[in-house]
Amino acid sequence: MQAWPLLRRAAAEFVATLLLLAAVVGSGIMADKLAPSVPALALLCNTVATAATLLALILAFGAMSGAQMNPLVTIAMARRGKQAWHDVPAYVAAQIAGGLCGTLLAHGMYGLPLLQKASHVRSGYDQWLSEAVATFALLIVIFGCERGGATRAQFAAAVAAIIAGAYWFTASTSFANPAVTLARSITDTFAGIRPTDVLGFVAAQCLGAALAIVFDRWFFGATSREPA
Amino acid sequence: MQAWPLLRRAAAEFVATLLLLAAVVGSGIMADKLAPSVPALALLCNTVATAATLLALILAFGAMSGAQMNPLVTIAMARRGKQAWHDVPAYVAAQIAGGLCGTLLAHGMYGLPLLQKASHVRSGYDQWLSEAVATFALLIVIFGCERGGATRAQFAAAVAAIIAGAYWFTASTSFANPAVTLARSITDTFAGIRPTDVLGFVAAQCLGAALAIVFDRWFFGATSREPA
Amino acid sequence: MQAWPLLRRAAAEFVATLLLLAAVVGSGIMADKLAPSVPALALLCNTVATAATLLALILAFGAMSGAQMNPLVTIAMARRGKQAWHDVPAYVAAQIAGGLCGTLLAHGMYGLPLLQKASHVRSGYDQWLSEAVATFALLIVIFGCERGGATRAQFAAAVAAIIAGAYWFTASTSFANPAVTLARSITDTFAGIRPTDVLGFVAAQCLGAALAIVFDRWFFGATSREPA
Amino acid sequence: MQAWPLLRRAAAEFVATLLLLAAVVGSGIMADKLAPSVPALALLCNTVATAATLLALILAFGAMSGAQMNPLVTIAMARRGKQAWHDVPAYVAAQIAGGLCGTLLAHGMYGLPLLQKASHVRSGYDQWLSEAVATFALLIVIFGCERGGATRAQFAAAVAAIIAGAYWFTASTSFANPAVTLARSITDTFAGIRPTDVLGFVAAQCLGAALAIVFDRWFFGATSREPA
Repeated sequence: MQAWPLLRRAAAEFVATLLLLAAVVGSGIMADKLAPSVPALALLCNTVATAATLLALILAFGAMSGAQMNPLVTIAMARRGKQAWHDVPAYVAAQIAGGLCGTLLAHGMYGLPLLQKASHVRSGYDQWLSEAVATFALLIVIFGCERGGATRAQFAAAVAAIIAGAYWFTASTSFANPAVTLARSITDTFAGIRPTDVLGFVAAQCLGAALAIVFDRWFFGATSREPA
Repeated sequence: MQAWPLLRRAAAEFVATLLLLAAVVGSGIMADKLAPSVPALALLCNTVATAATLLALILAFGAMSGAQMNPLVTIAMARRGKQAWHDVPAYVAAQIAGGLCGTLLAHGMYGLPLLQKASHVRSGYDQWLSEAVATFALLIVIFGCERGGATRAQFAAAVAAIIAGAYWFTASTSFANPAVTLARSITDTFAGIRPTDVLGFVAAQCLGAALAIVFDRWFFGATSREPA
Repeated sequence: MQAWPLLRRAAAEFVATLLLLAAVVGSGIMADKLAPSVPALALLCNTVATAATLLALILAFGAMSGAQMNPLVTIAMARRGKQAWHDVPAYVAAQIAGGLCGTLLAHGMYGLPLLQKASHVRSGYDQWLSEAVATFALLIVIFGCERGGATRAQFAAAVAAIIAGAYWFTASTSFANPAVTLARSITDTFAGIRPTDVLGFVAAQCLGAALAIVFDRWFFGATSREPA
Repeated sequence: MQAWPLLRRAAAEFVATLLLLAAVVGSGIMADKLAPSVPALALLCNTVATAATLLALILAFGAMSGAQMNPLVTIAMARRGKQAWHDVPAYVAAQIAGGLCGTLLAHGMYGLPLLQKASHVRSGYDQWLSEAVATFALLIVIFGCERGGATRAQFAAAVAAIIAGAYWFTASTSFANPAVTLARSITDTFAGIRPTDVLGFVAAQCLGAALAIVFDRWFFGATSREPA
């Protein structure tokens, strides 16, 4: 995977994160339009679309750039020696830029104003606890798959599945990703988050990620049971 | 795969595309009949049926003809040397004929008039942008899987998943396939598209496909990391 | 697979078909109870439960008896030399008995009268055409997977997927199985079929199966590209 | 798998069962909140979230502790010599403690009182029969996959699928797990069960598990066709 030049890998992260956000925001708009009075149905459709797209993107972009699409995943991989530290800034920048462009693309596909100010309030201890749990769950699943020698297909299925589950079992519908959180702060649609609520979400996500890293290090210790 | 005579492979494309369209159009009729007032539910059922059928067809017909079912996929494969150029006309003809017959079969299964004139308006910049994005996403996923050495099962899962996602994240519900677009222009049911809107859809699909080919060539360059 | 004594393999077919029918009939009862006025939702839940159970049963019973659960599949396998002809009567008897017991079990789980007379009318050319198409699609998928060397997991996914798709794209909700049809004729619930309509369904299924066998023989000819 | 110290494996069972219960209870709360008047939709969302989370957890924790998350599975594995008997108490304790903490975590994420007394009545012959059937089906699927040499991914898919199916085809929505049953007795939400009903459920689950063990021993006899 690290055979490709950094520029191309960052471009792959950009395109993958762009399509991911187009899916998250776009399917939210469609679901809300078609089921305005049945929020459970709208969230179910949003869940199916997000998980399916995530599965396809990891299968497709995994061989290009790792298909991380998440700054916390990139940093955690670097911390564990699976990703070069000097690649991290380009990856994170590509993920953030890709996410923002993905939101704009979703607006474009639905003929909405490209620039919007999100008004969806997402704040409070329950939301923050939810984000910490969601990010912990996502990273523990990623670490567990990787340590256990999962194939890329298993990895893709596990990531898509835990996100689908966490969309429903957390009170925050599981952002679990700072790049996604930022990108969702510029849309005033179903998937939006008020800009002032971004910081709390990202802080909680970092906490959950740290907890997952601690558990992973304790469990596997010095042993490096990495996939062959 | 190319071991089979062209006639048989074209026949396999015909049957696969026929069953795909029977699924797209037939499940649209059923969904609309059972959930006339809950469009989100109808589209969700249409999505599940389409993605499941696509998965099964690629698993089953992949070893026969490649299970491409899409002229743009066939042309892209030929351009990349994975499909003989002189097979392309027979493949495309079989896909178009199979699609049209699949729509007729769906009408027959529901006791509707076989020949219909679609009246569902699908036009405008947002629809065209959506089709370009959907086709770009489909082809980039196909190329990424193939370049990364995906197995047929992973390939099938990725294609079914990106179509399921794009049914929801695009404003056009993701046709992403000229043969499917043509076949949906002869049904005045849930899945239909007005004949005069076909050209715009196909043009947008070609644009999205071209963009995916450009990205693929830039990313992988002269390197031909093809599956063994 | 043929290493096990016939009695055990027939017992495995009995248990697998019993659980399949418990799933088909039981989830129909539950879905109808929880969504009496939204038929699309009831059918979606019935579809999810059936496809998921089918996937699990094929993965689990595949190594015991082949997990065919369908007389037409058993006969088609025997015709192609993949199953001994003298095993067929025991298999078919086990499938039919298992299916009937599965329906009774579903009634028991919901506290309904064990013996019921189905009143759900399912007849007419559109229904018969639908059953022929559904059975053709099921068998063509099974043959294609097997000829292409699919693993048991791919086979299980393909079968579950085509059934899920055909629940929605056929007008008959895809029985595609004489043992299932018979078992559904003794329940007056969501999944039922009037006893007098069974013959038409089974005849249409046989027609669809024959068509699939003809296509398979023409396509693969004398070549016996069987999985290693 | 048994290479890891017992403490770590028990900790992994604790975390896995905690996340499983957070998913079961949490998604029930969310589903009930978003679809209070459409119980079929609420159960469908609960099903999707549970099955997806289960799939991810088995893929991730399988290599750590086996991801059993169920005392009956642990005991059955010990009985068949796949798990050391002296590990069983720690595993079961971790599963029960993890389950209870998972319910508390779900309450915390939704800002509900942490300690609750369940009032959801789940009793009667139909419920008990359902739990016996659900546990029989779960264990027979686990045994069949393991005996047939299933990979971890196939195993994870089969377990998630049979649970998804049994959520719908049993009258009890398939607890099939004493640790889960206990954990659901301390929540007065969608997924709750009245404490006095726990014993009946667990007894029925034990009966179903015993039946599965008997069938498994009869079918496979002295032959130990275990995965390589």
